Amino acid sequence: MNNGKCLVLLSGGIDSSTALWWSIGKFEEIYAITFLYAQRHEIEVEYAKILARKAGVKEHIVFDLSHLFRQIGSSSLIDKSLEVPKGPYPEKGIISTYVPMRNSIFGVIAGAVMEKLEIENVVFGVHASDVPNYPDTRPEWASALEALLNSGSSLSFERSIRIRVLTPLINLKKHQIIELGLKLGVPFEYTWSCYSPKDQKPCGECPACIQRRESFEKLGIKDPLIERLEKKEVKYDREAFA
Amino acid sequence: MNNGKCLVLLSGGIDSSTALWWSIGKFEEIYAITFLYAQRHEIEVEYAKILARKAGVKEHIVFDLSHLFRQIGSSSLIDKSLEVPKGPYPEKGIISTYVPMRNSIFGVIAGAVMEKLEIENVVFGVHASDVPNYPDTRPEWASALEALLNSGSSLSFERSIRIRVLTPLINLKKHQIIELGLKLGVPFEYTWSCYSPKDQKPCGECPACIQRRESFEKLGIKDPLIERLEKKEVKYDREAFA
Repeated sequence: MNNGKCLVLLSGGIDSSTALWWSIGKFEEIYAITFLYAQRHEIEVEYAKILARKAGVKEHIVFDLSHLFRQIGSSSLIDKSLEVPKGPYPEKGIISTYVPMRNSIFGVIAGAVMEKLEIENVVFGVHASDVPNYPDTRPEWASALEALLNSGSSLSFERSIRIRVLTPLINLKKHQIIELGLKLGVPFEYTWSCYSPKDQKPCGECPACIQRRESFEKLGIKDPLIERLEKKEVKYDREAFA
Repeated sequence: MNNGKCLVLLSGGIDSSTALWWSIGKFEEIYAITFLYAQRHEIEVEYAKILARKAGVKEHIVFDLSHLFRQIGSSSLIDKSLEVPKGPYPEKGIISTYVPMRNSIFGVIAGAVMEKLEIENVVFGVHASDVPNYPDTRPEWASALEALLNSGSSLSFERSIRIRVLTPLINLKKHQIIELGLKLGVPFEYTWSCYSPKDQKPCGECPACIQRRESFEKLGIKDPLIERLEKKEVKYDREAFA
């Protein structure tokens, strides 16, 4: 799979950082893209910046979609009048943290960047634990996105380049992703999951926090992020975030 | 096909206005959506507003993507340092007025609006005359978009609603669209095509102007827009644009 360039969608969380480290060694040039989308947990973008630097990507693109997503709204991740749910993810069904068409919008904008930079591969960290609650993480969603990128782009139109949507984690559950990430050397102490940060610390109560805690517990490991934050006197690790 | 709601992508040009009038009578509620995307010919949005009013749509949504598309750039429609080509469309191949992934971005954002308003049908005025130059107008592009909207949306995920991407003009050439539009009663005097307006008038030299002129000539008709603009002393028809 050593065939040139890839673009990794990097949110700053466990999944996308594992997808990023998975890409290392497989591609000659790795680009990362992170979206500002008026998300409540904008702090994740700061974590994404550290991760991109530690992974040694060729370029980290931070793309601002705040204006667009404020117009879409309709999600407790964006609209501050809606409350982020507490407790674990429900077994099945859309929750208020779902953002309409978010991943599809990220995917086609990634496609525009790929056209400009002539990148043929795009890597998404979608995975099995997301599927019951988020439609735009399913295998059929990834296939449809690939078809759209290929039919709607000048890369495939003029130069018969075949764009590939790669989803290396699509069959893994959260704790399996952590296992893989540990093998790959992902610095999980610099990954962010919490939907509803307080004082630059995870809330501990939202579905993302609970899933993260339970997944590390399943592996008998203390969450390296919590460990790092507890060790530090300062809220921010100034060196890392410099 | 009297099955509820539809959303029409309305640019203010010949094709999308014909698609809008095609929808009248077929759906109980018609919504239109128009995008500001930092396009040089932003005047088309004013025309779209008139058309939406004349068509009697339930709601005309004007969605601002200028901030997003300024970041994408890479097109003479957006980047003012690039020149809009003069002369007819080339027989084949991408031209500088192509905007990377534009229609796909419009499509998925339309999808977000459809989720919010529970609209099942979306109508695109893509057509055969665009296919040689714009990848994101091809039949396979429309099918891929439909698959993406269905796999990435909460409408199909939770409620087994099947979203349909309708492309009534996909096999028609520009002059055939005008023929159809005339039968449907489209007020072509309030449609805008020119990529490079000067003083609120069409330039007459860009590919869009030339294709429009040739298509009306083929039908032996004077372009109603030109007729309207020539009749008026004022640059803007103030009543219509009120």
